[in-house]
Amino acid sequence: MVKLRVHNLAVSLDGFATGEGQALETPFGHAGGRLMEWFLPTQAFVEMSGHEDEALGAGTTGVDNAFAAATGRGIGAEIMGRRKFGPQQGPWEDESWRGWWGEEPPFHSPVVVLTHHERPELEVGETTFLFRSLPPVEALELATELAGGLDVRLGGGATVVRDFLAADLVDHLHIVVVPIVLGRGVRVWDGLEGLEERFDVEVTASPSGVVHYVFSRSGSRPGA
Amino acid sequence: MVKLRVHNLAVSLDGFATGEGQALETPFGHAGGRLMEWFLPTQAFVEMSGHEDEALGAGTTGVDNAFAAATGRGIGAEIMGRRKFGPQQGPWEDESWRGWWGEEPPFHSPVVVLTHHERPELEVGETTFLFRSLPPVEALELATELAGGLDVRLGGGATVVRDFLAADLVDHLHIVVVPIVLGRGVRVWDGLEGLEERFDVEVTASPSGVVHYVFSRSGSRPGA
Repeated sequence: MVKLRVHNLAVSLDGFATGEGQALETPFGHAGGRLMEWFLPTQAFVEMSGHEDEALGAGTTGVDNAFAAATGRGIGAEIMGRRKFGPQQGPWEDESWRGWWGEEPPFHSPVVVLTHHERPELEVGETTFLFRSLPPVEALELATELAGGLDVRLGGGATVVRDFLAADLVDHLHIVVVPIVLGRGVRVWDGLEGLEERFDVEVTASPSGVVHYVFSRSGSRPGA
Repeated sequence: MVKLRVHNLAVSLDGFATGEGQALETPFGHAGGRLMEWFLPTQAFVEMSGHEDEALGAGTTGVDNAFAAATGRGIGAEIMGRRKFGPQQGPWEDESWRGWWGEEPPFHSPVVVLTHHERPELEVGETTFLFRSLPPVEALELATELAGGLDVRLGGGATVVRDFLAADLVDHLHIVVVPIVLGRGVRVWDGLEGLEERFDVEVTASPSGVVHYVFSRSGSRPGA
């Protein structure tokens, strides 16, 4: 069965996936880079970003990398919120924005961008962005069709993940708890009381200080 | 130096140390026993509660027990909130209440109970309860005096721990994150943004599914 998977969703100890004050230069708000510090040194990220770093070399190969490397495996399409695609809100005033990722985005597959403001699809390198106004269940149907038998990744941000969890559409949820207290921002867990009842949970602490939670759906998806 | 230590403070993934609807029969509110499930099978708890259980035997001796067993080591006094002592609020209408713990409470040392309603001290077995209306720094001074050179334990509940953390008085904080989403109750992390900057943090995942966080003060206590 095709699965809907979330990978590398980093949250603070107090449950914030991003800080306050998100903007073009501060995509995580006052959290800065702290939520993704565990990810940047991994071999998977170094390879994805396409250049070796003098300080990082070829990247780490421990447990953080093991999880990071699973991100793209067997994925045929992604669903993301509009804010992951770019900083604009409301009607598209600047259609020259082609995402954060330059001329070869790391997706190499169709990406469904959820937005109330539809626009023509956009090809960047091997990635096609489709801008659609769809409720979670229909977005997943479309992405599943585009994925050609492979899994669909739910790319975030936090509110999009929360919406799909609330609709009980997520099969695999990889959450990374970073040992910092952010105090304010976008909460991941709101409205998800009892979430654990629908999943098997496996927990792994990393020497980097983060904790990897893997929630795997215990039964099959309702209606699937 | 005498330390102020918190042990076994269990919180849900979304940061609640107790659920909604606390009462005499439901001290953790709608959380029920779920936050302390990891603790009950440990040898330390089995010994503390004074009777072996047929199902549990002498108790587990793994990582959960290693942490549970540190609770009483080198402790000379405890500070607790009034709600940990008993369910009454406001003026003491029933002074016959002698705590939850029967005739031999597990403290075996002086216990400072923080309350706006002072009353004469109470001896139960080897434990003396002192009922004092004191701000955190003075409560710690009193407890330190009573502890005779040993450490002081901050016994909870969550709001009391939060107050002492906000006043920067805690030296050792052992938090146990339980993989459940409670959705409502008393939040531990509120008002503690940046807490991690004052501590070294060590993280250990247990096969039981909980994660043990140990925050150790990185420098010395201000004013100490």
